[in-house]
Amino acid sequence: MKEEDTKGVPLPRVGQETRLDYRVIDVRTPTGQAIFRVQHQVENKFREYLSARDFIGIHTPKLISGSSEGGAAVFKLEYKNGKSACLAQSPQLHKQMAICGGFRRVFEVGHVFRAEDSNTHRHLCVFVGLDAEMEIMRHYFEVCDIVDGLFIQIFRHLNENCKRELEAINRQYPFEPLKYLERTLRLSYEEGIQMLKEAGTEIEPMADLNTEAEKKLGQLVREKYDTEFFILYRYPLAARPFYTMPCYENPAYSNSFDVFLRGEEIISGAQRIHEPKLLAKRAAEHGIGMSSIKSYIDSFSYGTPPHGGFGVGLERVVMLFCGLHNVRLASLFPRDPQRLSP
Amino acid sequence: MKEEDTKGVPLPRVGQETRLDYRVIDVRTPTGQAIFRVQHQVENKFREYLSARDFIGIHTPKLISGSSEGGAAVFKLEYKNGKSACLAQSPQLHKQMAICGGFRRVFEVGHVFRAEDSNTHRHLCVFVGLDAEMEIMRHYFEVCDIVDGLFIQIFRHLNENCKRELEAINRQYPFEPLKYLERTLRLSYEEGIQMLKEAGTEIEPMADLNTEAEKKLGQLVREKYDTEFFILYRYPLAARPFYTMPCYENPAYSNSFDVFLRGEEIISGAQRIHEPKLLAKRAAEHGIGMSSIKSYIDSFSYGTPPHGGFGVGLERVVMLFCGLHNVRLASLFPRDPQRLSP
Repeated sequence: MKEEDTKGVPLPRVGQETRLDYRVIDVRTPTGQAIFRVQHQVENKFREYLSARDFIGIHTPKLISGSSEGGAAVFKLEYKNGKSACLAQSPQLHKQMAICGGFRRVFEVGHVFRAEDSNTHRHLCVFVGLDAEMEIMRHYFEVCDIVDGLFIQIFRHLNENCKRELEAINRQYPFEPLKYLERTLRLSYEEGIQMLKEAGTEIEPMADLNTEAEKKLGQLVREKYDTEFFILYRYPLAARPFYTMPCYENPAYSNSFDVFLRGEEIISGAQRIHEPKLLAKRAAEHGIGMSSIKSYIDSFSYGTPPHGGFGVGLERVVMLFCGLHNVRLASLFPRDPQRLSP
Repeated sequence: MKEEDTKGVPLPRVGQETRLDYRVIDVRTPTGQAIFRVQHQVENKFREYLSARDFIGIHTPKLISGSSEGGAAVFKLEYKNGKSACLAQSPQLHKQMAICGGFRRVFEVGHVFRAEDSNTHRHLCVFVGLDAEMEIMRHYFEVCDIVDGLFIQIFRHLNENCKRELEAINRQYPFEPLKYLERTLRLSYEEGIQMLKEAGTEIEPMADLNTEAEKKLGQLVREKYDTEFFILYRYPLAARPFYTMPCYENPAYSNSFDVFLRGEEIISGAQRIHEPKLLAKRAAEHGIGMSSIKSYIDSFSYGTPPHGGFGVGLERVVMLFCGLHNVRLASLFPRDPQRLSP
């Protein structure tokens, strides 16, 4: 190889599609092995941190009678009893129902199915969701506190215990160690918008951030606060799902947050509506039929504490922590709109 | 209630179907809470025991292009690219492909989908599989050794750390503590058949045991060896899936085993065929088309070590350890041929 190189003869290159077609050979490299050892550690720490704080691991059904998030991006199939079923787009409805069921604090590590036609570097049709849901005593920042402590511990654990793995990845896909603060920076959505405006970015103040604005905000925050990991809270209500609790003093905003890692959104979290009437009203406003979510909404009518939670994609955490350029590298056998094998 | 009782007025009874319809109220009892705390501990111990022995947790795809076990009991759906997909009936093919990929020892905790029309006390259409796969150095008993150590540790952990939970369950569903030995009893299939014959049970020596024979054998083993947990190994090849390694000295038998808990099978394990030619031949003999498992069989052609593994249903472990009469009690939101909600 070296000889060819010095002679200027181009070396054969293997594209990503071919590598994924022969995935069992592709992952035999030190890098391939290292990525999935890091992934294993992320999941272990996620479970360990939450278990130590009285969360219990549950498993919610992946086959449900209606879509779990609304929207069309759902895989449908015929169930045994002639009814049609959907693959759950998230454990959202059932992890909340576990709170209705008296479990107080729950988490789940499980597959999530999105029939989206997103052919990007960061979307998959099937990924592993790390989800948590918990009673809230006074304020939804209690959920942010969990996210904060959890991820700082994950980052520290990876840096301290996966040195060899991170070096192996770094040799093939060079990256800078993640910059993060010991206590995670929290900015309100309005502060974020203000920063973007001051930097000259055109922005619609009550809509969601697009990918470009997210990247820009990440860059600005890094320059100003020296961190690549931060929480943006108090999103406009219109940018959030129907089950998100509106702000009490200004219902144009909501008790919700996103978390950013190296300029990309990785976590969405929020307080949920626990009052069945308001929940039904918000679902109707989102055009979601009562028939498909009746058992979900009914669950709240037997008395439910205020609660909130968050969800994050395992592959995305690994991709961004390790500075990988494609989420498929962090999925052992990835599924995207074009790929269903091996 | 007490007054009604003494007057001989029958108390209202709520059947299981109604209870499952209102599952979020149903699980609010101490028993309901306890069952899922036990389940959480089983999963934690499973992960901890294997992680400490160099297994890494992986996630295999739940949407695959062909059925993973052969047979008709598979959920089908249309995938994004117009192709048809199946929900994986087990992580079997992909956990073996992870061994081909150089991971040496892997485990998975994940959903398993069976479109079976089984309306029994122990079958679900969706359950949580605890699976492991590992390189074998000399003999498939190395897999039995892992199963042995793993489950003895799980049983001990539950008895020592879930006393309160087990008492709560015992009050509603009385059961005797599980009898097990510190080193798990291993009987050959032939020895098992012999015991059944001597007890007067009619038995076909080269077929699988039916449920009745399993129960009877469990009873005989308990009487003779004072244990309700044992391994039955060296099954007839004809009773096992196509990927099972035949015995070298007598190919009518196989390098495989089942594990029994309180007279019911909970674990199936085996050495797998790692030679692509023999694997293709066995698949053909089982009438499985090459097209649907090509990428699986091809994986073995790049050099694969001898390997084996096992799989067990999380809900079934909890049901049998706690002496519950129905697996639905150990599934938070069960799915069976009739039930797709809540």
